[in-house]
Amino acid sequence: MSRNGYALEESDLLPLSLGAALLGTGGGGNPYIGMLRARELMRMGLTVEVLPLEAIGDDERIGSVGGIGAPVVGIEKIKQGQECLRALRGVEEAAGVKVSALISAEIGGSNSIEPILTAAYAGLPVVDGDGMGRAFPELQMSTFFIYGLDPSPGAIADDKGNVVVFKSVVDMYWLERFARHIAVDMGAGAGFATTPMPGAYVKKVAVPGTLTQALEAGRVILEARAKHWNVVERVLEKTGAGLVFAGKVADVRRELRGGFAVGEARLAGLDDWAGSEARIAIQNENLVLFVDGRAAVMVPDLIMNLELETGEPVTTEILRFGQRLATIALPAHALMKTPQALAVVGPKAFGYADLDFVPFAGSAPASRQDQPIAPQAPSRRHSPF
Amino acid sequence: MSRNGYALEESDLLPLSLGAALLGTGGGGNPYIGMLRARELMRMGLTVEVLPLEAIGDDERIGSVGGIGAPVVGIEKIKQGQECLRALRGVEEAAGVKVSALISAEIGGSNSIEPILTAAYAGLPVVDGDGMGRAFPELQMSTFFIYGLDPSPGAIADDKGNVVVFKSVVDMYWLERFARHIAVDMGAGAGFATTPMPGAYVKKVAVPGTLTQALEAGRVILEARAKHWNVVERVLEKTGAGLVFAGKVADVRRELRGGFAVGEARLAGLDDWAGSEARIAIQNENLVLFVDGRAAVMVPDLIMNLELETGEPVTTEILRFGQRLATIALPAHALMKTPQALAVVGPKAFGYADLDFVPFAGSAPASRQDQPIAPQAPSRRHSPF
Repeated sequence: MSRNGYALEESDLLPLSLGAALLGTGGGGNPYIGMLRARELMRMGLTVEVLPLEAIGDDERIGSVGGIGAPVVGIEKIKQGQECLRALRGVEEAAGVKVSALISAEIGGSNSIEPILTAAYAGLPVVDGDGMGRAFPELQMSTFFIYGLDPSPGAIADDKGNVVVFKSVVDMYWLERFARHIAVDMGAGAGFATTPMPGAYVKKVAVPGTLTQALEAGRVILEARAKHWNVVERVLEKTGAGLVFAGKVADVRRELRGGFAVGEARLAGLDDWAGSEARIAIQNENLVLFVDGRAAVMVPDLIMNLELETGEPVTTEILRFGQRLATIALPAHALMKTPQALAVVGPKAFGYADLDFVPFAGSAPASRQDQPIAPQAPSRRHSPF
Repeated sequence: MSRNGYALEESDLLPLSLGAALLGTGGGGNPYIGMLRARELMRMGLTVEVLPLEAIGDDERIGSVGGIGAPVVGIEKIKQGQECLRALRGVEEAAGVKVSALISAEIGGSNSIEPILTAAYAGLPVVDGDGMGRAFPELQMSTFFIYGLDPSPGAIADDKGNVVVFKSVVDMYWLERFARHIAVDMGAGAGFATTPMPGAYVKKVAVPGTLTQALEAGRVILEARAKHWNVVERVLEKTGAGLVFAGKVADVRRELRGGFAVGEARLAGLDDWAGSEARIAIQNENLVLFVDGRAAVMVPDLIMNLELETGEPVTTEILRFGQRLATIALPAHALMKTPQALAVVGPKAFGYADLDFVPFAGSAPASRQDQPIAPQAPSRRHSPF
C-alpha cells in the first residue's frame, strides 16, 4: 500500500476485536458487534488502509471518531452504523476543513473499530495509534486533549438524524459534560467526532502502533486457542503483561450512573491467591485493582481480566458471579504517565484522593498482605494455568 | 422612526417589565433583572426600535432569542449579558444568514426583555409580537415551532464562552430535550437562539402586538398605583382579563426537576370565595387553575396572580405562604388554540390526559361547586377590592 501502510483484511477483524477487548481494560464497549459491522462492509468490497504514524504529513488534518455512551447499553442498542460519520461531517463543516485520515481516540474496546467503519464509509485510511493506548471513560482522557488540543468544535450524532455541534467550549471538561449528557439523551449510544487535528500534533502525542498491537494480541489469543496452548500464559509471554491475581468472581455491583457503568467486582483468590481477595473498581473500565485492600495496579496502567480457561477478555458489562479470571496488567505508555497526563487519567482524577500513582513495572505473582506490593518477577511454579 | 415603528425609551422599561411579568402567567423568569440590564444599556446610549409585524419584509430573516433555564435559578444567577447574542451569532453562522430583526419567542417574563438586550447589542430592531402571547416552559411551545419551523439549527450559549449548536434535530421535541439538558449543564440559565425565520412566516404565525400589549398593561398598573386606584380592578377593566379567584396562599410545593420549577400552590378563598379552595398547577408557569377541584382555567389560556393590595404580578418562584392574591385570566390568542396548537400547549400536552381544553371566555366571579363553571359576567358587587 502507499505510505508504507497495510491493508486491513477481513481476517484481521476477529483478532483485532479480541486484542481491542483486551486493551479495553474491561471497557470501551464490546468490540464484537463493531467487528461484525466492519466485516459486512469489507464483504461489500470496502477496504481500509492502516498508516503508520510517521507516514502522516504535518499539515494533514486527522479526524478522530468514536462511540460515546455506556458499554452496557451498547450490547442491546445496536448502532445504526453511520453515527460517527455524521458526527465527522458535522465537525468538518464546523471547522471548515476535511480530514485525510482517521485515528482512534481509544484503541480499547469498540472504539478500535469505529474509526475503521467510518474510514470505510468515507474512503479514508486509519492511523496506527490512538489517544490512550487503552480505553478510558471520558473524552478528555486522551493524549489529544491532555496535551492541549482545542476541544472545539466537536460533534455528536445519533441513529435518528440528530447532530449537535459543540461550537465553542471553555475546556475539555465542558466538552465531556455536554457530550455525555447529549449522549444520554441520544439513548446512551452515539457517535462523537473530535475537532480535526494537524498531522504534526498527532505524530507528537498519539500512542503509536496500538492498532497493530491490538491486532497482534488478538492473533496470540487465536493462535493459542487453535493450538490448544494455555491462552493466558501465552498472552503474558507475548504481550509483556504481568499476572497480578487469579480469582473467582464473588460479587459484582454495577449501576448506570450519568451515562457510565459504575461499580466494583470482588474476586476470591484461587491457587497462589487462595484466601486473598481482589477488588476491582470500575467506571466503564477497570480503574484500580486492590489486592487484600492494597492498590496493586492503578490507572492509567492497564488492568485486564481474562477467562482463566479460554483467555477470553472479560469486559465489565459481562462480569458475573462465578467467572474464573486471570487479572493481568500492562504498564501504560509513557505519554499517559507524565504529570500532565496523570492529572487527567491518574487515580486522583478518578476520585482516589489518597492514591498516589505507583507505576506497574512488571508481573507480580501476588500482593498478599505479608508481601511487598512492588512488582516482582513472575513465579511460574504456582501458575494457576 | 422608520417603518412605522417606535423607539423604546428608558421610561418604557419599567412598565414593559411589569406587563411582561403579568403575561408571564407566573413564569418566564422575573423580568426585573433584565429590565435593569436594559436600562444600563439605554443609559449608555443604545436604542432599540420596535417594528410592527406588518413592517417586516417577506424575505427578511428574523431571529428569535431568549433565556432558557429555571426561573428560580434566574433570581440568583444573574446573566452575564451576552448569552443570547452569542447564541444568535452561533445560529447565524450555522444557518449561513444574518438576521435583520429580533422577535421574542415568549413575551411573558424575562424573555420579553432578552431580545431587546440582544437587539441593543447587535444594533437591530425588535418586532412587536411573539410566539406565545404569554410564557411557556418548553421551546416547542411557540407558534414558530407549532406551525412547522424547521427546528435546526438552534444554538445555546452560556456566560463562560460555551456555545453549542443543534446542527440537525429530528423535531422540536428533540431540540427541547437537548437544549434543556445543556441549559442545566450551563447552570440552569443560558441564552438560546432559534433558527432564523423568513419574514413572511413570522408575519403569518407570530402573536401580534404583544410587546405593546405588555407595555400598556404595565402602564395601567403604574398609573393606577400613582393615582391610588385599585390596581387589580383597573387591570381587569383595561386588559379585558376576568377575575376567577381571590385567595390567600395556604401552601406552596415547588421543586426543581429536570431544569423546571414544578409544583402547585393552594389558595384559600377570600370574600366571595370564602370556604372555597383554589389549586394552581405549575411548571415554571401557571398551567391549570382548579377551583374546588374543578378546572376553571387551563393552558393555553392565561392564569395570572396579582397581589391583591398592590396589583404586583406574582411569579411562581416568589409565591409564598400568606400572600393575598387575585387570580385573573385572559383568553389565549386564536393562534394558540387551533387543534395543532392545543396538541402542543393544551392541557393534555402537559400531562392532564383527562382535561379537554375549555376556553376561558371572560371573567367569572367564582366556580363554586354549586355553580356552573361556564364563564359569567363579572359580579362587581362582591368585589374583594
